[in-house]
Amino acid sequence: MSVSTPTTIYQGDAALADLLRGDGIDRSVAAIRDLIAGVNAAPDGEAPDAWLELVSGRRSDATTQQLLALRATMARPADPAHGDHGARLAALRAELKRRGLDGFVVPRADEYQGEYVPLRGSRLAWISGFTASAGAVVVTLDKAAVFADGRYTIQVRQEVSASLFSYHHLIEEFHGDWAAANLPSGSRLGFDPWLHTGAWADRMRSCLTPAGIELVATDGNPLDAVWADQPPAPLGVVNAHPLSAAGRSAADKRADIATALAGLKADAAVLTQPDSIAWLLNVRGADVPCTPLPLSFATIRADGVVDWFVDRRKLAPGLEAHLGNQVAIRAPDELGSALDALGAAGAKVRLDGANAALWVVDRLSGAGARVDGGGDPCTLPKAVKNQTEIEGARAAHRRDGAALVRFLRWFDAEAPKGHLDELTVVDRLHKARQGAADFRGPSFDTISGAGPNGAIVHYRATRATNRRIEKDSVFLLDSGGQYLDGTTDITRTLAVGDVGPQARRHFTLVLKGHIALNRARFPAGTAGSQLDSLARQFLWQHGLDYDHGTGHGIGSYLSVHEGPQRIGKQLNGVTLLPGMILSNEPGYYLAGAYGIRVENLELVVPAAIPGADRPMLGFETLTLCPIDHRMVDRDMLTGDERDWLNTYHARVRTELSPLVEGPDLDWLHQATAAI
Amino acid sequence: MSVSTPTTIYQGDAALADLLRGDGIDRSVAAIRDLIAGVNAAPDGEAPDAWLELVSGRRSDATTQQLLALRATMARPADPAHGDHGARLAALRAELKRRGLDGFVVPRADEYQGEYVPLRGSRLAWISGFTASAGAVVVTLDKAAVFADGRYTIQVRQEVSASLFSYHHLIEEFHGDWAAANLPSGSRLGFDPWLHTGAWADRMRSCLTPAGIELVATDGNPLDAVWADQPPAPLGVVNAHPLSAAGRSAADKRADIATALAGLKADAAVLTQPDSIAWLLNVRGADVPCTPLPLSFATIRADGVVDWFVDRRKLAPGLEAHLGNQVAIRAPDELGSALDALGAAGAKVRLDGANAALWVVDRLSGAGARVDGGGDPCTLPKAVKNQTEIEGARAAHRRDGAALVRFLRWFDAEAPKGHLDELTVVDRLHKARQGAADFRGPSFDTISGAGPNGAIVHYRATRATNRRIEKDSVFLLDSGGQYLDGTTDITRTLAVGDVGPQARRHFTLVLKGHIALNRARFPAGTAGSQLDSLARQFLWQHGLDYDHGTGHGIGSYLSVHEGPQRIGKQLNGVTLLPGMILSNEPGYYLAGAYGIRVENLELVVPAAIPGADRPMLGFETLTLCPIDHRMVDRDMLTGDERDWLNTYHARVRTELSPLVEGPDLDWLHQATAAI
Repeated sequence: MSVSTPTTIYQGDAALADLLRGDGIDRSVAAIRDLIAGVNAAPDGEAPDAWLELVSGRRSDATTQQLLALRATMARPADPAHGDHGARLAALRAELKRRGLDGFVVPRADEYQGEYVPLRGSRLAWISGFTASAGAVVVTLDKAAVFADGRYTIQVRQEVSASLFSYHHLIEEFHGDWAAANLPSGSRLGFDPWLHTGAWADRMRSCLTPAGIELVATDGNPLDAVWADQPPAPLGVVNAHPLSAAGRSAADKRADIATALAGLKADAAVLTQPDSIAWLLNVRGADVPCTPLPLSFATIRADGVVDWFVDRRKLAPGLEAHLGNQVAIRAPDELGSALDALGAAGAKVRLDGANAALWVVDRLSGAGARVDGGGDPCTLPKAVKNQTEIEGARAAHRRDGAALVRFLRWFDAEAPKGHLDELTVVDRLHKARQGAADFRGPSFDTISGAGPNGAIVHYRATRATNRRIEKDSVFLLDSGGQYLDGTTDITRTLAVGDVGPQARRHFTLVLKGHIALNRARFPAGTAGSQLDSLARQFLWQHGLDYDHGTGHGIGSYLSVHEGPQRIGKQLNGVTLLPGMILSNEPGYYLAGAYGIRVENLELVVPAAIPGADRPMLGFETLTLCPIDHRMVDRDMLTGDERDWLNTYHARVRTELSPLVEGPDLDWLHQATAAI
Repeated sequence: MSVSTPTTIYQGDAALADLLRGDGIDRSVAAIRDLIAGVNAAPDGEAPDAWLELVSGRRSDATTQQLLALRATMARPADPAHGDHGARLAALRAELKRRGLDGFVVPRADEYQGEYVPLRGSRLAWISGFTASAGAVVVTLDKAAVFADGRYTIQVRQEVSASLFSYHHLIEEFHGDWAAANLPSGSRLGFDPWLHTGAWADRMRSCLTPAGIELVATDGNPLDAVWADQPPAPLGVVNAHPLSAAGRSAADKRADIATALAGLKADAAVLTQPDSIAWLLNVRGADVPCTPLPLSFATIRADGVVDWFVDRRKLAPGLEAHLGNQVAIRAPDELGSALDALGAAGAKVRLDGANAALWVVDRLSGAGARVDGGGDPCTLPKAVKNQTEIEGARAAHRRDGAALVRFLRWFDAEAPKGHLDELTVVDRLHKARQGAADFRGPSFDTISGAGPNGAIVHYRATRATNRRIEKDSVFLLDSGGQYLDGTTDITRTLAVGDVGPQARRHFTLVLKGHIALNRARFPAGTAGSQLDSLARQFLWQHGLDYDHGTGHGIGSYLSVHEGPQRIGKQLNGVTLLPGMILSNEPGYYLAGAYGIRVENLELVVPAAIPGADRPMLGFETLTLCPIDHRMVDRDMLTGDERDWLNTYHARVRTELSPLVEGPDLDWLHQATAAI
């Protein structure tokens, strides 16, 4: 959706002030300009005019048009990555000198350590041009180094000037070691404690201290001080998440967390993860792309009372009433004094020590609190979906599946003609989902990988890389939707013409692993990492593997990547519990040729097995969409595996048939025919 | 083997002194009595007269006979578990009062935290009568509590007096919590820092400190002070382990460890695990049952020089020359001053913090050393067998397999007659192994489980539990041998008559898991815990599982349970490396009916796979012995699984045929026939 075009041009501030007065709206035009600046610092999303509600729910049409017209006059924030990075480095260095610092660390993370950062937090991109989802920069008075992982080896060289920065491997060369080697003894290296965790600071100090370098927490971010046109914090509209989708009231959830805190002998928790707060309070926001969360912090006491530190301007009308009187709205800059108060009371405070900003931990400890960094008490209950969320997930997957069927019918007709490209597909798929009820936007940027581009894990098509989808090629499509009742994430590998026996063999090995994981039954108490090899075993027999996890948790109209459960090679001891949702996504990538992945979402369910000697669990597949059987080498499947595929397709046909019609229904029948 | 019977009676100390003088042996009879007391405190093993070498290698026959006669006059140590436990508790309490202590913790472990403790270390058995392989006792001035895990629920009630002790669950109720609840604030609870790790003390303090109870390290063990007839430390003969079996000289190993210490920036390591020392110095001992290790401590400096703290009296003649001048033999009680010297030099000292006695860590830290508890530097190189050890393992398994074939041929003939019992089988199997070259004794106490006794994991037959092997029943046999060139560990589940379809179904599910794990190929870098579910998946499909690990490491003529690698549900991130040996032993246990397990040892080997895109590993089976195909439900196996079984049996037949003859060879052919 795009922003509505106003029907008139902007008539000036005085005219708008008159209109506001006439509507009985008690806000200055200056305040509205500030509001729009914040709105412009958030993504537009599927409801780009929703911000109008933040002005007032009671607006005349004339006022609405003038508000739209005012916004149209205001410049959108510049892309932080674009600009004169040499001048930016010089300005930062001058600021460092002024503060008596010899260097500064610029991480990719913002205050929330999340997957997405808003424009305001795009400091890494601003200083270097580097737009990756992971990375770091260290700036000294005479050098600058950028650190990128293996996924971004090429991109970093395209985006970051070699005359300004040296390139380094993020994993193989810790930036603390680089700093220790490139700063003289006695130096002072600055960092913003809002943007780093305690573990990071400990690791840095273990590098720097032996070299005689001091790691110095700055008071205020020196980069922000020289970023003249840094966008404000985003003001995406925060709405109530209805009980019909959440399934459990915020009051009940607060009571649950209060009980959990009592069990932990904690007096309070500081919630530093915005998705935990969104879950707890039954609210959803729009501050970052793809994930409907309001950036904010909160505390919850052992009596269930919450202080929510959030910009009141972004709350939709009526939200405070929805929250009730046990949730106090407080300004973001009041967090510090609230932590001081916890400290003064000698409170034992629980938080997620692995992800909380060091600033929070230090402020609490400094004030006298006893910090228990053992974890966010909302993480596990958020991961275990309740019956309403489960029903919502099932319903969202039916609508998502129907949208995919409409898209795939079109793709099958058009792709063999050879005129499609990756970006066309992204756009068409988005439009297909927009036709589904309660669609709220993509759950992540679609991975649309034609031929060799599919072999680049985490590939995102850009105008520069956009590739035509050729005949007789493999096309990888990984996408997902946010719906009011659930979040989806699905990958299909599509045959365009004849992909040849090698691709079919590789696909079938991947599919066998996907089936083995889906069919697994396992005792209650099993962790995801115990199941990972089931999905890899067939590839392994052929000396093949994939270098990513097999399954991640998924939120309920929240983050598409959610913990604490996970299926992967990394050790993860979190027990799988009924109600958790995980992806099942083995793959195989042949560099220069194609990428293959089969991904469905799976719900953990109890498995009733006659004769079982203990409680067993298994998976119920949520995703409903045909798996392209033109990719399958039928002879490589066992009878059980063929039965699995045919049974799955019969279910897809039964569940989606009522939602599609005409040529789409014909296509569905053909795509789900038994093999 | 039993101790040789002397041909004459003992003629008295004066006569022996004369004989010794005549042989030119410069030892007093009193010293020899002390030596024999130490020998008697060690197990007899397969070479019960080997101690004579410790007197001198140059003895007249008359002297030998008088030494044997002297030993025959000396009482063997009493079983520590037997006696008046009420009187023992009273004596300990009096000693505690004398020391101003309000309680004392008696663990099962000795100073080495190993699987076996010598008689001298059997403090738990002495104070309580409890003879389990795990457990603890806490004694206060008016109460006593014994802690046993789920395996020993029945046994602890049989062995420990309910009028003296209360019974508790070792896992579900930490003994620190019990102590906190049963001692008044202000109490002092003693513990012997030689017998506990730092992690244990930390956990105890976290229980006791909030209750106002002090945990006090004792100087000397108060239980030892009142155990009047406590046996001395064992004096099992220590022999050189020949290069032909070890494959790498001790000097080379010391150089390897020195390099590893340099890499860790450590100045020295303290070796607290006797099997590490045995591996490093290429020596083998006889201080405890089933594992050929000399109980001892050692330090190794970053220049490769070793100080070995061991009772010189137990070293076989010539051993010091074998060790060379870079290995100093020092008395066990000199360890403390050696640790002090490391501390005084400010050395960084590496050790296995998880297993080292707290005494060692505290002594080092107190003296000024920087302790790095990150691990024993010998653990990983010991686990990765060299080519000589691998060849030795293969050879030992051939001889072990031939011994098993002889045993199994006898068993198949006799068992259906219904007159065998579990202990008869243990004895006959031991005799069969004694016929194999270089046999040095069992590698653990044989598990011989008839019918329902097989369902008791870790069952050991005793006279009280000994069960007749009935017709039409399942018999579980888990045993192993120590050979000069390798250690074996094998489980077979044997059909006596017709075991019925249910037992065959359960066996076949276990066998399918065993086959799946054996056939697995996996990328270099994979840890054992990643493979565990491959062995369980078929049982899981039927709602069944087994409550033990799937695979443990095995030493090379050393401990049958060796780290750091492991295949199991517990998270274990140790990468499997070519040369490691692991067991593959899925099972299933139907309480009251039978136990099933299929165990072979597997060698990790590189797997050459055409078209592989990365280095892959797999397993080479070392164990050579028929799997009882009367237990197999053929229809449940896939074609690949049947091929596996037939191929394995063909290999067993080929490799063992040259080693057996007559009826044994006939039996081998029949037992390895294709199905």
